[in-house]
Amino acid sequence: MEQCKVLLDESEMPRQWYNILADLPTPMKPPLHPGTGKPIAPEDLAPVFPMNLIEQEVSAERWIDIPEPVLEKYCLWRPSPLCRALQFEKLLDAPVKIYYKNEGNSPPGSHKPNTAIPQAYYNKVFGIKRLSTETGAGQWGSALSMACQMFGLDCRVFMVRVSYEQKPYRRMMMATWGAECIPSPSNVTSAGRKILADFPDSPGSLGIAISEAIEDAVGNPEARYSLGSVLNHVLLHQTIIGLEAHKQMEKIGVYPDVVMGCAGGGSNFAGISLPFVRDKIHGKEVSIVAAEPSSCPTLTRGPFAYDFGDTAMTTPLLPMYTLGHDFVPASIHAGGLRYHGMAPIVSHLVKEQLVEARAYHQIETFTAGVNWARSEGFIPAPETNHVIAAVVQEAMRAKEEGKEKVILFNWSGNGVIDLPAYDAFLSGSLTPYELPEEEIQRALKSIANFPKP
Amino acid sequence: MEQCKVLLDESEMPRQWYNILADLPTPMKPPLHPGTGKPIAPEDLAPVFPMNLIEQEVSAERWIDIPEPVLEKYCLWRPSPLCRALQFEKLLDAPVKIYYKNEGNSPPGSHKPNTAIPQAYYNKVFGIKRLSTETGAGQWGSALSMACQMFGLDCRVFMVRVSYEQKPYRRMMMATWGAECIPSPSNVTSAGRKILADFPDSPGSLGIAISEAIEDAVGNPEARYSLGSVLNHVLLHQTIIGLEAHKQMEKIGVYPDVVMGCAGGGSNFAGISLPFVRDKIHGKEVSIVAAEPSSCPTLTRGPFAYDFGDTAMTTPLLPMYTLGHDFVPASIHAGGLRYHGMAPIVSHLVKEQLVEARAYHQIETFTAGVNWARSEGFIPAPETNHVIAAVVQEAMRAKEEGKEKVILFNWSGNGVIDLPAYDAFLSGSLTPYELPEEEIQRALKSIANFPKP
Repeated sequence: MEQCKVLLDESEMPRQWYNILADLPTPMKPPLHPGTGKPIAPEDLAPVFPMNLIEQEVSAERWIDIPEPVLEKYCLWRPSPLCRALQFEKLLDAPVKIYYKNEGNSPPGSHKPNTAIPQAYYNKVFGIKRLSTETGAGQWGSALSMACQMFGLDCRVFMVRVSYEQKPYRRMMMATWGAECIPSPSNVTSAGRKILADFPDSPGSLGIAISEAIEDAVGNPEARYSLGSVLNHVLLHQTIIGLEAHKQMEKIGVYPDVVMGCAGGGSNFAGISLPFVRDKIHGKEVSIVAAEPSSCPTLTRGPFAYDFGDTAMTTPLLPMYTLGHDFVPASIHAGGLRYHGMAPIVSHLVKEQLVEARAYHQIETFTAGVNWARSEGFIPAPETNHVIAAVVQEAMRAKEEGKEKVILFNWSGNGVIDLPAYDAFLSGSLTPYELPEEEIQRALKSIANFPKP
Repeated sequence: MEQCKVLLDESEMPRQWYNILADLPTPMKPPLHPGTGKPIAPEDLAPVFPMNLIEQEVSAERWIDIPEPVLEKYCLWRPSPLCRALQFEKLLDAPVKIYYKNEGNSPPGSHKPNTAIPQAYYNKVFGIKRLSTETGAGQWGSALSMACQMFGLDCRVFMVRVSYEQKPYRRMMMATWGAECIPSPSNVTSAGRKILADFPDSPGSLGIAISEAIEDAVGNPEARYSLGSVLNHVLLHQTIIGLEAHKQMEKIGVYPDVVMGCAGGGSNFAGISLPFVRDKIHGKEVSIVAAEPSSCPTLTRGPFAYDFGDTAMTTPLLPMYTLGHDFVPASIHAGGLRYHGMAPIVSHLVKEQLVEARAYHQIETFTAGVNWARSEGFIPAPETNHVIAAVVQEAMRAKEEGKEKVILFNWSGNGVIDLPAYDAFLSGSLTPYELPEEEIQRALKSIANFPKP
């Protein structure tokens, strides 16, 4: 029987996160204060985040210690197994070995608690009593709910109203972990009240929910805001995935030719890939590929520009690939990939050609996902289906070229709460969707006058 | 940091299942043919099950080899980790060490594929093309759907209509794995058509669904029926859980004082406990405890008697604890524990006082389950909450007695698809429920004239 899993004992779990800022060949552009156009200072962020996390956000240290209480919680489901997809390989019948990190076996079902737990911990240590955040599909909101409960923090999640109504299981999951989940727009904040006054039936948007969560936190000295992707410290925490994978592949004496992840805000992709990007910077031959939806093709069709992280223009200006903060992505089922921008670190790596991006539409991704579920068993999240589509493409290329390849990818989450998306796919109600160029050009007008990176 | 997990490499996975029939101090009573009152012969079962599984059902061999193709599929998620519930221990503040097998990380979220996979495999080898089965809450139906897909069998699942409508996620899961899920009563069988003619709006019942599934299989030489619990061969396959646990505890040099599982049909309970019952038979001091719902108290309040396994009286008469095949359990959320009978093996062990049974009501079980989710992260299935309630009780006893104890239990499944049950509990709409004695006596009338074991 061929080996199908590489395990790490908890004693082998990495004790430090990896900070790629220490290894970048060219420095990143700084975030800018939208008022002054000057680089923002740590103090500017102090009403929003606790200072210990702000320090991580700007740190240039290569290795950052994972605190003991965080390791204790990680241990509930980490280290995650490195699995070999032997059954999927048989199905593809291509000269590839496919390895994946199964991040779908965490309590909320995705990679999100890798950062939710340290964020809750650092806020707790800083004396904060409550965290506010927003959630779209609900993966992030549920992960932070669990983490806050574990460290004795209150948690308030503003959930896009249409998701709140369509995905009651996510709301129930947050309640089970003791969090307060509020449909957004809400009457809790002035931002929410303003929208409701104008549009009482507003279905909400991630932009509105972010504005509500930030307002809710900033008004209260005992509260802070928490973000589930995009920022440097979030990507830092996720490197536990890639560091484990690196160790696990070393154990079996295999090094990947290609490392892949799906990319929405960029955190799970960065999590698996940054330790391998480091190798690449130091001369190792390895391809690093980000898979995104063709309906929200930030990396493949957006420009590298300064833009707001949110629709409501409350964040600093971030240097990133963006479709413009006004961009409204189509309602694809992969809610976690519906983001107009991309993590500045990931954007920088794409610009520097250390990372390549590819886009896939829903039919391709669900076809790949169903084939996965029927061979490997586990049902992937719609987001994860994007990287599986990329793996299939890579395998087919290897077959055409008659070239052996080792593929490593991040299986970022399971799709149990997303089964209605599979139902839609199986009943034939999904269509492939290519975004018209005019739509991108229209959305980009909103950033035409911003500073250029 | 205290050790929180004991892993087994796949090379350490047990290669044989354990058959307790080889070690029973007193022999079990045989199943009887309801027509003749004589013990049934293997041939009697041939239209229902393939002969290779019937041979397992009646085998007296102590160790039965797990076929290589089954091991390959087990490897997708097995061996399951033996976890130490350090966070839950802190919460209980009692002198106990709590270990559990996490069976919730399988693709369908429970222990059920441990037997679904070998059942699909043996049917495939026997030349069968399609399996029919019934499902209540959907855990079993989804596990068999996945297993059939993996071995290229068609799968037809008759799902109790009320569950089919209330739990659409389970139906979608089965469809994702390529199975046909039919609400029961249906027009597919004469049993279903008869019910529909009399009661067009029938919500269905497990009894009706079993009758439909058996009829559907028996009428077709290329089809067979499959059952997810109760029978000897099902319990045999589940012993992989306890055999792994046994090895894992040996690795850390710890032996449990108490081994616990929840019991509906008995398969997950038997899975964790039979290898420890074997030790007990050979003189080891260990308590073995089955936790059942007080609304369906088969082991704690039913007699040991001959009864049918199904409501429609199509099975052989089984020697077991039973509330009578006419018994209709209250609609508790732990659908997997709503069964009038109990596996003959488990029943025999209770009668022989090798196993002790305890009953818990919904409020106790959900209180335990929410405390678990808030400390350990993972949200347990409503069935699993019963054994967690038993663990809490055991810990509180140890505290009162000032006695140290090691508890091992089977965390049989996750509750992600059962979140509406948590919603009901958190909103205060559940009540404790003690079954009136008259109801039991009324149901038992249906078996008054059956042979006595």
